[in-house]
Amino acid sequence: MALVDELTKIVGQKGVLTTAQEMAAFLEDWRGRYRGEAVCVVLPASTDQVSAIVKLCAQTGTAMLAQGGNTSLCGGATPGATGAPPIVIGLQRMRAIRSIDPANNTICVDAGCVLAAVQQAAIENDRLYAVSLGAEGSCQVGGTIATNAGGTGVLRYGNTRDNVLGLEVVLPDGSIWDGLHALRKNNTGYDLKHLFIGSEGTLGIITGAVLKLHPLPSARAVAWLGVASPQMALDALGLFRASCDTRLSAFELLNGNQVSMVVEHVSGRRAPIENADWHVLVELSDTCDASALDDAMQSVLERALERGLVTDAVVGANESQRAAMWEFRHSVSEANKKGGAGLTTDCAVPVSAVPAFIASATEAVRAIIPDLPVLIVAHMGDGNVHLIPFFRFAQWKAVGDQNALAERIRRAVNDAAAALGGTFSAEHGIGHTLTAEMSRYKPAVEIALMQAVKHAVDPKNLFNPGRLLPSAPPFGSRRAS
Amino acid sequence: MALVDELTKIVGQKGVLTTAQEMAAFLEDWRGRYRGEAVCVVLPASTDQVSAIVKLCAQTGTAMLAQGGNTSLCGGATPGATGAPPIVIGLQRMRAIRSIDPANNTICVDAGCVLAAVQQAAIENDRLYAVSLGAEGSCQVGGTIATNAGGTGVLRYGNTRDNVLGLEVVLPDGSIWDGLHALRKNNTGYDLKHLFIGSEGTLGIITGAVLKLHPLPSARAVAWLGVASPQMALDALGLFRASCDTRLSAFELLNGNQVSMVVEHVSGRRAPIENADWHVLVELSDTCDASALDDAMQSVLERALERGLVTDAVVGANESQRAAMWEFRHSVSEANKKGGAGLTTDCAVPVSAVPAFIASATEAVRAIIPDLPVLIVAHMGDGNVHLIPFFRFAQWKAVGDQNALAERIRRAVNDAAAALGGTFSAEHGIGHTLTAEMSRYKPAVEIALMQAVKHAVDPKNLFNPGRLLPSAPPFGSRRAS
Repeated sequence: MALVDELTKIVGQKGVLTTAQEMAAFLEDWRGRYRGEAVCVVLPASTDQVSAIVKLCAQTGTAMLAQGGNTSLCGGATPGATGAPPIVIGLQRMRAIRSIDPANNTICVDAGCVLAAVQQAAIENDRLYAVSLGAEGSCQVGGTIATNAGGTGVLRYGNTRDNVLGLEVVLPDGSIWDGLHALRKNNTGYDLKHLFIGSEGTLGIITGAVLKLHPLPSARAVAWLGVASPQMALDALGLFRASCDTRLSAFELLNGNQVSMVVEHVSGRRAPIENADWHVLVELSDTCDASALDDAMQSVLERALERGLVTDAVVGANESQRAAMWEFRHSVSEANKKGGAGLTTDCAVPVSAVPAFIASATEAVRAIIPDLPVLIVAHMGDGNVHLIPFFRFAQWKAVGDQNALAERIRRAVNDAAAALGGTFSAEHGIGHTLTAEMSRYKPAVEIALMQAVKHAVDPKNLFNPGRLLPSAPPFGSRRAS
Repeated sequence: MALVDELTKIVGQKGVLTTAQEMAAFLEDWRGRYRGEAVCVVLPASTDQVSAIVKLCAQTGTAMLAQGGNTSLCGGATPGATGAPPIVIGLQRMRAIRSIDPANNTICVDAGCVLAAVQQAAIENDRLYAVSLGAEGSCQVGGTIATNAGGTGVLRYGNTRDNVLGLEVVLPDGSIWDGLHALRKNNTGYDLKHLFIGSEGTLGIITGAVLKLHPLPSARAVAWLGVASPQMALDALGLFRASCDTRLSAFELLNGNQVSMVVEHVSGRRAPIENADWHVLVELSDTCDASALDDAMQSVLERALERGLVTDAVVGANESQRAAMWEFRHSVSEANKKGGAGLTTDCAVPVSAVPAFIASATEAVRAIIPDLPVLIVAHMGDGNVHLIPFFRFAQWKAVGDQNALAERIRRAVNDAAAALGGTFSAEHGIGHTLTAEMSRYKPAVEIALMQAVKHAVDPKNLFNPGRLLPSAPPFGSRRAS
């Protein structure tokens, strides 16, 4: 096949995978939910090779899908089952830490670097790269940028978008945009990097990035709180924010159902507080000495207890207790997988609307299935609520059309978020599973603007066609407009 | 005139200004450097009126220039002297604080709100709106967003871009994009707000915004340091960052020439430290009690003195001493205006490259005029250096072609920044004075991408033509591409 031969000339024999066996890991997502076809998988080793590949595909009109660690939760990284098969461009061979500048608090990396490797390189220079999420051991930096990944560092350090200073991107015609600036201020025209961040590979292939680093916090204080209601949790959050400002690095809300699920299904997990309707894990971190931070935690908790915002509180007395609290929080996915079928949602609302959202979304779910348990685990400080209508296995098996029911329930939750000015995808992105939601929840003028931008940058619709936008303009359809 | 009649129907008699006298303040910038012509000035009172105006102008092919407080330093807000005169759309009647949500730490405002009014509304709710700059008493929020304004809050809180959560924008066809989200997380397609932020009115007219608020710091500590060199200042900055993290809210560097200029020309100003070659104003701020912050300042200063990073230090003992230090810093513009002719530049480089930039740029200036004094005032924490080659009045008067010399000297400074990966416009923007620099310093692929975006959003080139981009695509020229 001519294309494969040409690609081999660019990346060498070992850089082109063509057999079903070689390609398998690239064509299916890690949860086994999405599977597609590809012409082949190409593994470039440099930005110039990516550029040459894209130029070749642009000439032949071949669709391309860039893939990082393939950890998408919404089919964003695997090719589709319909449409012309693309070539998959895997970035895994591009994993150099290009340079690190501690005095500028920046690191410059290849897009194929695994997130954990970047975190580690920062730590070795007494710095923090603040993006942190469950998949950090396998996801790649380029993927986190293309999807504007969230995670547990958002409350203090922002989303991935807020941690990127510069990008190197291969454009749909194969040209390379060198935007690898390491500047805090640069007002010289449109800030193009923000166009590519979160664009899910539809506008360009990110090949390198300059990332922001922060001072490495030397102390942290962690507490587990029992609270009577989401409103009380909101009030406690306000108190923590006012008192601790940026020292507040996590404020995670769980309901009693979710805590019970972890206790029931993950061995060795004990709830730090029993019998509370609502639970909060709160963390402070700072570069000061640990005792000052402990004092700050103690002082805020005393005020929260006095005001009745919190019914009970346990402070992690040492690093192992602190770690155990986080371990409990991180056991949520495992517990829910073992316990039954959870319909995960990923809404965000204004932080002030979290209590109203939890109430109205729960009500909407129960209007469909009365008394269905709802698990809640929320990055409350970001207004991001994973509300999970939950079926025991037997109950789920008895459902006739599972897909239809799942969609109806998720729609009800997303509608509740929309009614409060919220979003149906806070951190997971669109991929190819949520493009229909785009049409439902976005104003037409916004969709049209996105399509106009897509067409301006990728007029032949070669990068990740069918993703992100509800209907990417077909090849050439707008060319004469 | 038909257009004026139609505009009057939209905004009423008092909303359309047509006489030279009425329009004067809109056609000239506040420093009297740029003057242009306009068909008329229109003052809409609502987003719907802006939309109707734009629809009308789109039909008639009339260019439009949106104007906020008209405080641009690079001709960005005044119409040009060449080309077809636009209509000027002034946002000053749209000045409502639409809503404030302290629990979500957000405020929603009309674009015509004066920046200081937004700051005040935040303070009344025990919150901080962190964008702060010299023109805050007259510049409008819409203008600060359209230009991604910097200022003195950047080190801790980021540029204006980092403080915007949502936008309402009237597009070049008159349609309204309602992107007034108040969300911390929202991964649903391209983040369009970042396209409009910093676009200097060339893509849309910002009519409303949701802005981030922060806890109001209750304590601040301010010190004035003498340092031996920019490298010592850089090392001291590193120490402050590592120890104080986000509590570090200002780190301003001045050279001895600049300090002397203030002492000489602004009555009542005394240098906090005399006879130092380099001076640093450092500020910490926090929500903790003041004594804890004073202790933190004291502790870092002791270490800085021990390590020889700082030769001398004076801590502001009370609010009036702290205010006097800031007053000295803010007297720079007045002093330089009185003392002679300064050629202000606005470069940023990586923070780590500030010492090298100061050395090479100074050398480049002196290769043109030996021994010319150079004043330096830098937001060092942001890598943003205002290096000001300085002429006494008599010396400046003796220059034959002042414009040519000014351009040659500025070019030398900008080249020095570029050689270190820096930018020629850190916070002032492009306007119509720096479009030539865009071609000189930006890669062609970046300019082409910006032009493609401009054409996609504003195909008739009606919004602020001739600004920002070196050559905006002429009407229709790309339509068949």
